[in-house]
Amino acid sequence: MTPHPILIDGAWRPVEAPTGSFQPMNPTTRTPLLDHYPISSWADAEAALKASQVAVEQLRSTPVEQIAAFLEAYAAGIEARAEALVEIAHAETALPKEPRLKSTELPRTTGQLRQAAHAVRERSWCHATIDSKLNIRSMYRAMGGAVVVMGPNNFPYAFNGVSGGDFAAAIAAGNPVIAKAHPGHPGTTRLLAEAALEAIQATGVPQALVQMLYHMEPEVGAQLVTHPLTAATGFTGSRAGGLKLKEAADRAGKPFYAEMSSVNPVYVLPGALVERGEALATEFANSCTLGAGQFCTNPGLVLLIDGAGAEAFISKSVAEFSGRTAGTLLTERGPANIAQALAALQAAGAEVLTGGQEATGGGYAFQNTLLRVSGADFLAQPHALQTEAFGAVSLLVVAQDADELLAVTRHLEGNLTGSIYSATQGADDALYARLEPILRTKVGRLLNDKMPTGVAVSPGMNHGGPFPATGHPGFTAVGIPASLLRFAALHSYDNVRPARLPVELQDANPTGTMWRWIDGGWSQGGVIGG
Amino acid sequence: MTPHPILIDGAWRPVEAPTGSFQPMNPTTRTPLLDHYPISSWADAEAALKASQVAVEQLRSTPVEQIAAFLEAYAAGIEARAEALVEIAHAETALPKEPRLKSTELPRTTGQLRQAAHAVRERSWCHATIDSKLNIRSMYRAMGGAVVVMGPNNFPYAFNGVSGGDFAAAIAAGNPVIAKAHPGHPGTTRLLAEAALEAIQATGVPQALVQMLYHMEPEVGAQLVTHPLTAATGFTGSRAGGLKLKEAADRAGKPFYAEMSSVNPVYVLPGALVERGEALATEFANSCTLGAGQFCTNPGLVLLIDGAGAEAFISKSVAEFSGRTAGTLLTERGPANIAQALAALQAAGAEVLTGGQEATGGGYAFQNTLLRVSGADFLAQPHALQTEAFGAVSLLVVAQDADELLAVTRHLEGNLTGSIYSATQGADDALYARLEPILRTKVGRLLNDKMPTGVAVSPGMNHGGPFPATGHPGFTAVGIPASLLRFAALHSYDNVRPARLPVELQDANPTGTMWRWIDGGWSQGGVIGG
Repeated sequence: MTPHPILIDGAWRPVEAPTGSFQPMNPTTRTPLLDHYPISSWADAEAALKASQVAVEQLRSTPVEQIAAFLEAYAAGIEARAEALVEIAHAETALPKEPRLKSTELPRTTGQLRQAAHAVRERSWCHATIDSKLNIRSMYRAMGGAVVVMGPNNFPYAFNGVSGGDFAAAIAAGNPVIAKAHPGHPGTTRLLAEAALEAIQATGVPQALVQMLYHMEPEVGAQLVTHPLTAATGFTGSRAGGLKLKEAADRAGKPFYAEMSSVNPVYVLPGALVERGEALATEFANSCTLGAGQFCTNPGLVLLIDGAGAEAFISKSVAEFSGRTAGTLLTERGPANIAQALAALQAAGAEVLTGGQEATGGGYAFQNTLLRVSGADFLAQPHALQTEAFGAVSLLVVAQDADELLAVTRHLEGNLTGSIYSATQGADDALYARLEPILRTKVGRLLNDKMPTGVAVSPGMNHGGPFPATGHPGFTAVGIPASLLRFAALHSYDNVRPARLPVELQDANPTGTMWRWIDGGWSQGGVIGG
Repeated sequence: MTPHPILIDGAWRPVEAPTGSFQPMNPTTRTPLLDHYPISSWADAEAALKASQVAVEQLRSTPVEQIAAFLEAYAAGIEARAEALVEIAHAETALPKEPRLKSTELPRTTGQLRQAAHAVRERSWCHATIDSKLNIRSMYRAMGGAVVVMGPNNFPYAFNGVSGGDFAAAIAAGNPVIAKAHPGHPGTTRLLAEAALEAIQATGVPQALVQMLYHMEPEVGAQLVTHPLTAATGFTGSRAGGLKLKEAADRAGKPFYAEMSSVNPVYVLPGALVERGEALATEFANSCTLGAGQFCTNPGLVLLIDGAGAEAFISKSVAEFSGRTAGTLLTERGPANIAQALAALQAAGAEVLTGGQEATGGGYAFQNTLLRVSGADFLAQPHALQTEAFGAVSLLVVAQDADELLAVTRHLEGNLTGSIYSATQGADDALYARLEPILRTKVGRLLNDKMPTGVAVSPGMNHGGPFPATGHPGFTAVGIPASLLRFAALHSYDNVRPARLPVELQDANPTGTMWRWIDGGWSQGGVIGG
């Protein structure tokens, strides 16, 4: 069977000199799906880069209204294909059709695209700054090259390279995107790219605004993210794969935004255990087993202080985990990857309380798994005991007292999130006050009384965090307008003649509502005297 | 003679197990100055890191008013030592006392510190963002570790690790600083650090807020910028040194803000040559020979289109360059470094029009030097012909026509600045419109009718640019408040109880004037209904 063509320069083209092809698997039936998809060689990546360079030049004179219209037309096109998208994504990923794919992830994806369109029209995202006295002005603008977006396996729409948050941010900031599909859901990605192409044609934006390759060998990926015509990369995936590409991109001086791994510590403080420990165990189990645990914000580490409350919480958690059917994993490699992570955790001293084995008889699955380790043992091997198991797996760390809990916290690596549950009436406040300053700088998002799963598309969100959760603690992958700043360069204009300035930096406010920092404060007006 | 002590944890301490010592040279007399300064081993760096960690914890409860007071007290302390600072900096660097050191760089330095103090009090720099409906809030905050600042040789005050722009930004964002002096001006740095310590004691800020080492071997530097207790590094210096440290920091996931090298292309378009070519040649010579050419924004590349105007500009430039006395260079290595860069340029086809030799008889000096190459030859070896010569050296590229000029522009690497001079009455406007889009994304700051030297401390400034000028095109080293964002992490608070939020994110506006992004717009008010 001929592999599917790829999307290059506004058309579906056969691959040039592919290095192979692949068939995605149906994780529920453990059987291959029928379609064949190509593994691109450098020739395809180069063709995409050349076309993207033309798009970069065209985008300089493309009105922002047209970019916004594209994002909205694309969102509508996705909705028009909802049924087909849900069918194929379910077949490729085993994620439930309802509510997950149809009522949660798909509306989130179109919502992101529409929020991005709003930001494009509203224009405040670019932080236009005007020093009228010195006549020096600046703003964030498109980077002048292609943005490569490589999506993960676990969100076939909302983080897909051709439709997700990084994609929306890169396009909204004015860049063309070269998307790499995740090989776990190429058919889903194909349908999305068809909708993107239709929106390109309907709105008249540059034809190479969105291009898509299905797969490539790691060395081709490294060449792509370091190429002079590439401006930056957004990557969501494994730590091993991310670090290799990051190293190549760093050496070439190319920004590489990687969201890689996180165990998302959850603290349940003693007062909360007394007050509502059993309910929290259920809340924890709900969060950890959701989507078979395949979330970057999955609660993979729970921190407790030894005592009757902790034991009751653990017993209830074990009952919850063992009483639930194992969810189907996204890929064939899922069970082996989890088993490998568990082996590392056990070798470092963690004891399995429930689960621990591949679940057989149905699709790719692994038993819901809880492990336990003492605070002292954690402190002996803190690195190994932060190994991420990408599934419904969590390690309970039981510290002997508050001091040991804080010591454990000091040894945490960078994470996307950290949650603290505490008593409602103040019994845990003193401990919270000691814990929070240590935890705060190790996580991108700090939660109270809430599990980390569920990443709202809010301007206040930080879906990011210190290394190795991501490569830089100052950027978020979710949340508009802040996520756009990753794919923008700071452009200063010094003494540039007025008519040559971008409209956002001219004296008159271009929309009458855009916010600009003028002479020391944010303003929706024009330059006074200008 | 015993080497000077270093500043660790609020006190001047002898170094522990130094790996050597050094004496700075007087560049004017080519003789060593009397003082001896130590080369620190890892023991000193480790002691500084440990003390900085205490400061990190103390800073969480240090009122911003106190940080602002420290910055202002430090500025006043520098002014109180102005005479001594000018004497020693002149002896160590040969920079002229007037106007450069006393009336330009010293006031700029104290001005930066005071602007930083203002930003700290004003608080808007942190981009407090409130989504009141979802109760998710975020802001930029101190990173949770030490910021290492390594300053360059060419600005003993304004970019000094212990007093310059990176220093002010890191402190203002709430971080402790570990400064590495440049070995070219250790005595200047010592006096500054004494003023910093006095200000620490006078204002009661954490005693390890500012620490200072004089020098260290490269491997100790690499260990310092990658250490878990280090949050980020600000580096200004050579490309070779910067890239080595950057690679180490990147691998450790530590932000490394490097300002490394730039040739700062200056275009003089044909209409401007006709209109005011001779005057522009003088303006160019003034800019290029200022400070013996030792500026990161020195105009090292001038781009012209062949013709009578270009030849007249070149003749006048040669006369200007050859008629001026060579300035004294900062360091003993200056002449050899320039000679090495010239050799690379000549090997790649550039022809010396004037200068080209070390200037002997006085201090360290090199003749003011102009080179010339055709556009075609430039295109044959674009990389080699962008070699930076850190001195009063510039390469004139003469393109045969507009198309070749644009082709040359496409081959430029990332630069801090790009300047375009054009006719006042529109004769160059068509060419400008073709050139600007290509040049724009290759430079951090685009200038019209202005030389790149002179970097105003303006909120609209970008003293940054694409690699290899810096490591990331989205950050500026000069300009407050934007420069603070380099040394801050994005902290999101999800469902955090109101009293536990930083005051900047609570419903009420903490100052009544701070700007916050609340529910879709910038506001100086509180949360409505809050």
